[in-house]
Amino acid sequence: MIAPAEWQAELEERRAAVRVIVEQNACDAALIFGSQGHGQHFRYLTNFAPVLGDMWLIAGPEERLVCVLDFDWQLEEARRRSGIEEWHGRLDGVEVVADKLAGLGPKRIAIAGLERLPVTVWHRVRERIRETEVVDVGTEVATLRRRKSPLEIRLLQEAARLTDVALDVARTEARPGVSERDLAARLGQALGPEWSFPPTVVSGNDDPIPIREPTERRLETGDSVMVDIGAAYEGYQADATRTFVLGNTNQEQRRVWDAVLRAYEAAIEATRAGVPCVALHKAAAAAAEDAGYPLAHRIGHGIGLATSFEWPDLANEQAELEAGVTICVEPGIAVPGAGVMKLEDDVVVTEGGCELLTHSERSLDVA
Amino acid sequence: MIAPAEWQAELEERRAAVRVIVEQNACDAALIFGSQGHGQHFRYLTNFAPVLGDMWLIAGPEERLVCVLDFDWQLEEARRRSGIEEWHGRLDGVEVVADKLAGLGPKRIAIAGLERLPVTVWHRVRERIRETEVVDVGTEVATLRRRKSPLEIRLLQEAARLTDVALDVARTEARPGVSERDLAARLGQALGPEWSFPPTVVSGNDDPIPIREPTERRLETGDSVMVDIGAAYEGYQADATRTFVLGNTNQEQRRVWDAVLRAYEAAIEATRAGVPCVALHKAAAAAAEDAGYPLAHRIGHGIGLATSFEWPDLANEQAELEAGVTICVEPGIAVPGAGVMKLEDDVVVTEGGCELLTHSERSLDVA
Repeated sequence: MIAPAEWQAELEERRAAVRVIVEQNACDAALIFGSQGHGQHFRYLTNFAPVLGDMWLIAGPEERLVCVLDFDWQLEEARRRSGIEEWHGRLDGVEVVADKLAGLGPKRIAIAGLERLPVTVWHRVRERIRETEVVDVGTEVATLRRRKSPLEIRLLQEAARLTDVALDVARTEARPGVSERDLAARLGQALGPEWSFPPTVVSGNDDPIPIREPTERRLETGDSVMVDIGAAYEGYQADATRTFVLGNTNQEQRRVWDAVLRAYEAAIEATRAGVPCVALHKAAAAAAEDAGYPLAHRIGHGIGLATSFEWPDLANEQAELEAGVTICVEPGIAVPGAGVMKLEDDVVVTEGGCELLTHSERSLDVA
Repeated sequence: MIAPAEWQAELEERRAAVRVIVEQNACDAALIFGSQGHGQHFRYLTNFAPVLGDMWLIAGPEERLVCVLDFDWQLEEARRRSGIEEWHGRLDGVEVVADKLAGLGPKRIAIAGLERLPVTVWHRVRERIRETEVVDVGTEVATLRRRKSPLEIRLLQEAARLTDVALDVARTEARPGVSERDLAARLGQALGPEWSFPPTVVSGNDDPIPIREPTERRLETGDSVMVDIGAAYEGYQADATRTFVLGNTNQEQRRVWDAVLRAYEAAIEATRAGVPCVALHKAAAAAAEDAGYPLAHRIGHGIGLATSFEWPDLANEQAELEAGVTICVEPGIAVPGAGVMKLEDDVVVTEGGCELLTHSERSLDVA
């Protein structure tokens, strides 16, 4: 979908933007650290994150880049995806990192990822560059990643398309007698090989836990069935939810679903550049409460190289939305009698509003 | 498969063993930290690890336990699985941890997980318990987890059984024309909802990368096709590999496979309590080299609540194997003309040898 040359141009642009941060902070080297599930800075600059383990990117003078992983399995894949020549894979990779940094002997180093870098690991690196001043540029690099580029939007569109396909499968295959686990496994296949997170299926009306792992419980007629899934594409992660009712809806389900739809509309309505992030949560929570129910959790969060950890946290972030920010909007209500009912779509924020990325049918009806 | 009462008894035993460590170190409190992909200590003591985010277990006096996660979705599931009452879920969970610890005001605290605890996070906790002495008991807790209990062996047997089912599916569905990605997705479904890692399929003879993500490449007649997969069950992770050749084998494939089998037999033959872990790698590497090829990577590693990170690293660990240690044995050779050929089984170490956990047919033939 993305030609190698296009990826290289995108990566050059991202690296140039980080170099500006490094220079503005008067640093002569940079270190980007990522741990499993928190490799977003690293992946942003390399178009690669390992299946397992920590990741380090060292930027020295003359734009020379060196990467270090915990394992040597994926080095060739990493080279090809990143266009970076020098990769090392060793279970004790921190030793390689410390050697390389000691060799550079920087006066002042810019670090992104200190908020994930383990204490004992950092001590081992630090003692080899004792004279070096350290500047934490994590927030600046994270800010760079907030607005998505046209290429990033295309990748998220593809992830959303794959997610729509699996949501359609869920609508067809959510049937009395199927276990949550089997449905989740089927959706895992429908999503394709790259997931944002393991598929979640929560069914039944009387034990309203907002989210949990799928169980051996078999779906029954009358159940609310919530399916929260996400396909990823080249690291970009969609995140969407549909709720189905198997057979006729009961009164409580109808009332709860009405409140979910009102919260959804209020949040979508409020979404546009210039609005404080937290306004979306306030609008949705007010709409749900007017309809008689509290929201079970925050109205949503950013999507990109992560889902739940991606900026912004819509329930708490005071900063304003900008055009090009991508978020999910996910009102959920969990009460006895209706179970868990949630509707979730991904959107791109625009100057005047937002554009939906996920489009799968939104009704409670199974196909 | 495991009754709740049985789980509780197992957890009591594990917690009692950790309490002994805490007391031997003259500590009056303990803190167990886990990050995503590195939550093994935490899961060992709680029978739970969150889908996303960090995890904290605080043990105060009178066996009182408090757990803190980054999200509130899974608290009810966590309560049920762990039997621990007090769980907190907050994106800024470190604040809760710091409050709880400040409230306890320990004189001396035992910590496991410092090797994953991020610098900036630890500083925030540390400044609230400045007077407290800190003792790193990570190695002692890790040592406790080396030998698997009968219950753990049963869970690994079940994970291995699920993995065997999926390996059989691979043998049936690895066919010319199928893409690596589609085969991987099919295997993901066959494994069930809990995986050790995303299914890996590497095909073709001329680009021998030992492991990489599956691609859109379609399998062809004559290909070596390596399938490396693992099902997990209640957190316990199997890890096994089969290689198939679609159609007739070429001479290079036959020679490489002969070397793989010799390395496999040498490693299995060497496996028993009392043998230094590194002896398995040496025996297998020597056998492969005698047959004309170098091993592409280490001969294996522990399996349990993790795979690649589980103790022991068979290529480097000098300590001796003990009865009840569970490992995978995975000789792999990657050369042009034969592609990647690997055979991997899981075994339990016994006093006199080892017992296989995975049993799926081992030949190169597709069914």
